[in-house]
Amino acid sequence: MTYCLGIKTEAGLVLASDSRTNAGIDQVDTCRKLHTFVTPGERVFVILSSGSLSITQSVITLLDEEFARGQGLASAVNFYAAARCVGGHVRKVAELDRTALERDGIGFNINLIVGGQIRGEEHHLYLIYPQGNPLRATVESPFLQIGESKYGRPILDRGVRHHETTLEEATKYALLSIDSTMRSNMAVGPPIDIVAYAPDEFDLRRRARLTASDPRLTELRSHWESELRRVIQSLPSVKLP
Amino acid sequence: MTYCLGIKTEAGLVLASDSRTNAGIDQVDTCRKLHTFVTPGERVFVILSSGSLSITQSVITLLDEEFARGQGLASAVNFYAAARCVGGHVRKVAELDRTALERDGIGFNINLIVGGQIRGEEHHLYLIYPQGNPLRATVESPFLQIGESKYGRPILDRGVRHHETTLEEATKYALLSIDSTMRSNMAVGPPIDIVAYAPDEFDLRRRARLTASDPRLTELRSHWESELRRVIQSLPSVKLP
Repeated sequence: MTYCLGIKTEAGLVLASDSRTNAGIDQVDTCRKLHTFVTPGERVFVILSSGSLSITQSVITLLDEEFARGQGLASAVNFYAAARCVGGHVRKVAELDRTALERDGIGFNINLIVGGQIRGEEHHLYLIYPQGNPLRATVESPFLQIGESKYGRPILDRGVRHHETTLEEATKYALLSIDSTMRSNMAVGPPIDIVAYAPDEFDLRRRARLTASDPRLTELRSHWESELRRVIQSLPSVKLP
Repeated sequence: MTYCLGIKTEAGLVLASDSRTNAGIDQVDTCRKLHTFVTPGERVFVILSSGSLSITQSVITLLDEEFARGQGLASAVNFYAAARCVGGHVRKVAELDRTALERDGIGFNINLIVGGQIRGEEHHLYLIYPQGNPLRATVESPFLQIGESKYGRPILDRGVRHHETTLEEATKYALLSIDSTMRSNMAVGPPIDIVAYAPDEFDLRRRARLTASDPRLTELRSHWESELRRVIQSLPSVKLP
């Protein structure tokens, strides 16, 4: 299982993922699901992946090879074209593997979140479906999730606002959303990879890998839980009837 | 879809449910999923139901008929026996309907939560599985959920404590847990039926049906959301790296 999310507000982007993979056909316990493509000063992409590890590795490998040649994400004229480029590679890998997988009853399973910025445009956040088509985060829907998304959704629904949420706040929302998910589903686990990006930075200076015992995570969790209980106490009581 | 939950702490029980049913074979939009069986001064049962409406209706009907005759829940010697009585009716309805349903590819789908108290014992909270077997809430796991349970779980995980959470607090947790779920899944909807029970009351004096516009619900939600955002702002910032 996997849980990844991206938040886009006026103040920038936060992208974060867990690192747990189930044993199974992939036989790997921990893997990085956050991938970056950077041309300093000019363009930045962060890609989060969920689904079959074999499929996501293939897509990232093809994107990497292309990027190294100055093509694909390295030369996309705008972010929509970049999202289409990622979706194109999803379709290429589907051509390579889908028939063989489905013959053995295995679905073609990949979802990606792509966030970043190309100079001359604002920052963007997209979801790429297994069919390769893109979906953009909007002012009304300022976050996107892939994988085990239900546990971590209410705190984002209640808290994240496109015009108001700062990059520092979005970082806390993302970590608490993943922490809630890890707590409720053992198949989502640390370390947490996280990137925060402010518009026009064109590099990834705010980036961390947080283990389960990282004090930034444990302190955030314990503060949040004690404050949550304090707030519940302080809310007006509900008269029944 | 459905979401129901029960919370058991030292201070008592809170049981709550949404009221949405999907159209489909049952063709009903709203139905009560909270059922009560009371012998004033002696025993109290609250049953929450999820799954096929046809199946849950049959189980509740059989329990009602038995209760009216002074049998079943009306005469169970202790709460474990009462939970077994409910599970027995689940098995009876399975005998009646399961084969016919499965012949058309429809699963035998029912989950129940049973809370209450029989004089001479403490208050109890059980989950009854579709197979009829019971599971009891414990000090370590002081809440039980059925139906669309993921959205509403983190706030319970983080906040509810068997030795500490008051009945008034448990009421707020239950309402916020359902409210989070309604917000994220349109198939879970108001009104919310809720009962709070303090040990040794042996009646249901704290009971309400809250519509979507009930000020008790809308005020709780708006207070919670503004406090949540304030708390996130106030938490120590997370340095990356």
